[in-house]
Amino acid sequence: MFKKVLIANRGEIALRVHRACQEMAIRTVAVHSTADATAMHVRLADESVCIGPPAARDSYLNVAAILSAASITGADAIHPGYGFLSENASFAEMVEAHGFAFIGPTAEHIRMMGDKIAAKDAMRRLGVPLVPGSDGALESLEEARAVAERIMYPVLIKAAAGGGGRGMKVAHSADELEEAWRVARTEAKAAFGNDAVYMEKYLDRPRHIELQVMADMHGNVVHFGERDCSLQRRHQKLVEEAGSPALTAAEREAIGAQVTQGLSKLGYRNAGTLEFLWQDGQFSFIEMNTRLQVEHPVTEMVCGVDLVKEQLRVAAGERLGYAQEDISFTGHAIECRITAEDPESFAPSPGRVNTYHAPGGLGVRVDSALYSGYAVPPHYDSLVAKLVVHGKSRAEAISRMRRALSEMVVDGIRTTLPLHQRIMEDPQFQSGDYTIHWLERFVGLRG
Amino acid sequence: MFKKVLIANRGEIALRVHRACQEMAIRTVAVHSTADATAMHVRLADESVCIGPPAARDSYLNVAAILSAASITGADAIHPGYGFLSENASFAEMVEAHGFAFIGPTAEHIRMMGDKIAAKDAMRRLGVPLVPGSDGALESLEEARAVAERIMYPVLIKAAAGGGGRGMKVAHSADELEEAWRVARTEAKAAFGNDAVYMEKYLDRPRHIELQVMADMHGNVVHFGERDCSLQRRHQKLVEEAGSPALTAAEREAIGAQVTQGLSKLGYRNAGTLEFLWQDGQFSFIEMNTRLQVEHPVTEMVCGVDLVKEQLRVAAGERLGYAQEDISFTGHAIECRITAEDPESFAPSPGRVNTYHAPGGLGVRVDSALYSGYAVPPHYDSLVAKLVVHGKSRAEAISRMRRALSEMVVDGIRTTLPLHQRIMEDPQFQSGDYTIHWLERFVGLRG
Repeated sequence: MFKKVLIANRGEIALRVHRACQEMAIRTVAVHSTADATAMHVRLADESVCIGPPAARDSYLNVAAILSAASITGADAIHPGYGFLSENASFAEMVEAHGFAFIGPTAEHIRMMGDKIAAKDAMRRLGVPLVPGSDGALESLEEARAVAERIMYPVLIKAAAGGGGRGMKVAHSADELEEAWRVARTEAKAAFGNDAVYMEKYLDRPRHIELQVMADMHGNVVHFGERDCSLQRRHQKLVEEAGSPALTAAEREAIGAQVTQGLSKLGYRNAGTLEFLWQDGQFSFIEMNTRLQVEHPVTEMVCGVDLVKEQLRVAAGERLGYAQEDISFTGHAIECRITAEDPESFAPSPGRVNTYHAPGGLGVRVDSALYSGYAVPPHYDSLVAKLVVHGKSRAEAISRMRRALSEMVVDGIRTTLPLHQRIMEDPQFQSGDYTIHWLERFVGLRG
Repeated sequence: MFKKVLIANRGEIALRVHRACQEMAIRTVAVHSTADATAMHVRLADESVCIGPPAARDSYLNVAAILSAASITGADAIHPGYGFLSENASFAEMVEAHGFAFIGPTAEHIRMMGDKIAAKDAMRRLGVPLVPGSDGALESLEEARAVAERIMYPVLIKAAAGGGGRGMKVAHSADELEEAWRVARTEAKAAFGNDAVYMEKYLDRPRHIELQVMADMHGNVVHFGERDCSLQRRHQKLVEEAGSPALTAAEREAIGAQVTQGLSKLGYRNAGTLEFLWQDGQFSFIEMNTRLQVEHPVTEMVCGVDLVKEQLRVAAGERLGYAQEDISFTGHAIECRITAEDPESFAPSPGRVNTYHAPGGLGVRVDSALYSGYAVPPHYDSLVAKLVVHGKSRAEAISRMRRALSEMVVDGIRTTLPLHQRIMEDPQFQSGDYTIHWLERFVGLRG
């Protein structure tokens, strides 16, 4: 096992990685910008190195400074956390070229999944479901009709050369198909000089469901079930759940088998997440994140696994040591991302936290780098705390989250705590029947 | 279900009960002395009533004031917590006589278990194991030999009329029996005017192992496994674990069946704990606590159960709704009782807490009524926080506790945090091989 790990990140995720290391008796090196000299991840790490001025490009994205810090402290591995350099394939290559272990997938896989088209091609090859549609361009209206009957209405006709919504038409039923076909081809010709069109299932009310996977270097791949991250505002997740209120155990098992078989063929290693749109029981691959995700704690709570420890173990060459059938799912977990933002306008609200008080008691987990007297700097992501609860049922988890939110104090800055309280109290949220569009409407209604 | 519960307690346990009520949409009434006007349990409850001056006999033991508070607030049930009035049978009677539900066992069972001799008689009748020994007084040296062979050396010969250690002799082997028999009888005659003696197994290195039970009003009794509370100083528990490092699953199952069958015959209801000395696979009943215990969280963590919610449900007449075989045990949990005491001298250290910072992250639970700026009053028990961790294994739980202890800040008063850190680092504790005598020696070595 590694002796010393450099954590190339800040905030709650740097703390998260530090905690796993400390419990495994691995020493930690924190890196920090000048703005973060008194940050919690710096205070708790065994050693720390200042790597540059506040701007992330000069510090947390400063590859040379980070590699130097690893060298001078004698670290043997680097954990990138999420964000910053975590999905930078060149960084992963340089880390390994300098003789450190990179706690994550190979640079090749990071690069492949970073290219969204290459990622989809790979997934198609590996048997992971993409959005249903035609195989390339449609030859005729008759073919369009046949494909639409197969994938079921509503369908989308899209310009093969297109983008930005031009040459894109929805047909909600067979009656609308001919018109959509005609208009899409006309627009495509006008906009791109090419009237080739293809067809995709139109997902009008999808959920965002993602699958957590873990792979060792010996070909063993497992999944830890799904997370439902449909509650998003401007593509930013606010609330995540495990499991999804929409998915059955059989559906989880089926997609899990497809994904783990695919990644095993690919030779993938370490943690990863496959993101899907999901509607009417159908998964459509969007992208794969080749790193730990913000919302990984909900998975940990229902599976009883420490994902960061698993990352460290497999990065050091250990075998997983368990199989898919050893993984079980207990109860329900919810995470609220508490950000330093105005809960109505979402304007950033950095500044000094006079009093920080974390909620406690049964089933409550707090991942936060806040402390009383800490000044949230304006330079970075506004996430300041992840409040995670576990309950026997989804209903218990929601009531526990409401209780925990009511106990939490972050005084001195504005936070999204009140927004989360309103979400938890909402009957639609409580019903579990929501799509990726629900939260933006909910927030809009309040704004 | 109850609409409003009065919590007749203070500190972390009042908060614990409040949290369960809040998650069940039950309103709460806090009671408090004048010294506790700004206490956390008062701040978080839906309503609060001042019931008297600081001295507990005038406030938290003031039955009339508590019943008045329940009347004027329209509470329909009273939860006594632990300590104070929780094992006062007359209080339970008066609560019910005034038309409130008492969240606990019947007054009859509280009274029976409060009388330590009656409790042992009851347990003997119900088939719960007591310390092995002779059936009453020994008739002869020959009978003494036979009993000693059956219960195995070392044995204790004790004056039937005795107490306080006089007329009590240990025989470690058959060679020592005749001498012990002679001396014990002589001392008994001299001290009590009666030379009748009896024999008990001498437990020279017992562990304290207790069993958590829960019963509804319909004859259903289950147990939630054992806690090992051997780490005690002057009969005060400092560290508790679930499960016991010494017990096998089969031993747990066997004692659990004896206890639940016995309590079912007795018609016991609500939560209870049977405390045993345990040595060489043998359980010897000491006493039964007819209430929630301080250390109940470790059981909650390994069983995934909310014991206070279960108390509330069965007190409202609900059925348990599950059977013994539905209860399973996952991983290992440890609780450290953090007290406001000097960690070397154990002198009380009340006063203002300038900064309170709770540890966080995976597998960490904090039950505490502390907050930054709170003044710990000198009038009550010195327990200020229960730090509880859960891990996949005992080794992981210990490493997690060390990590969590290192993050916790209680600034302004002295606490036992450093003592707990030393215990967690100790190889003997880590081995799991300890008895009820270990901690006093460990503390003595440091003092």
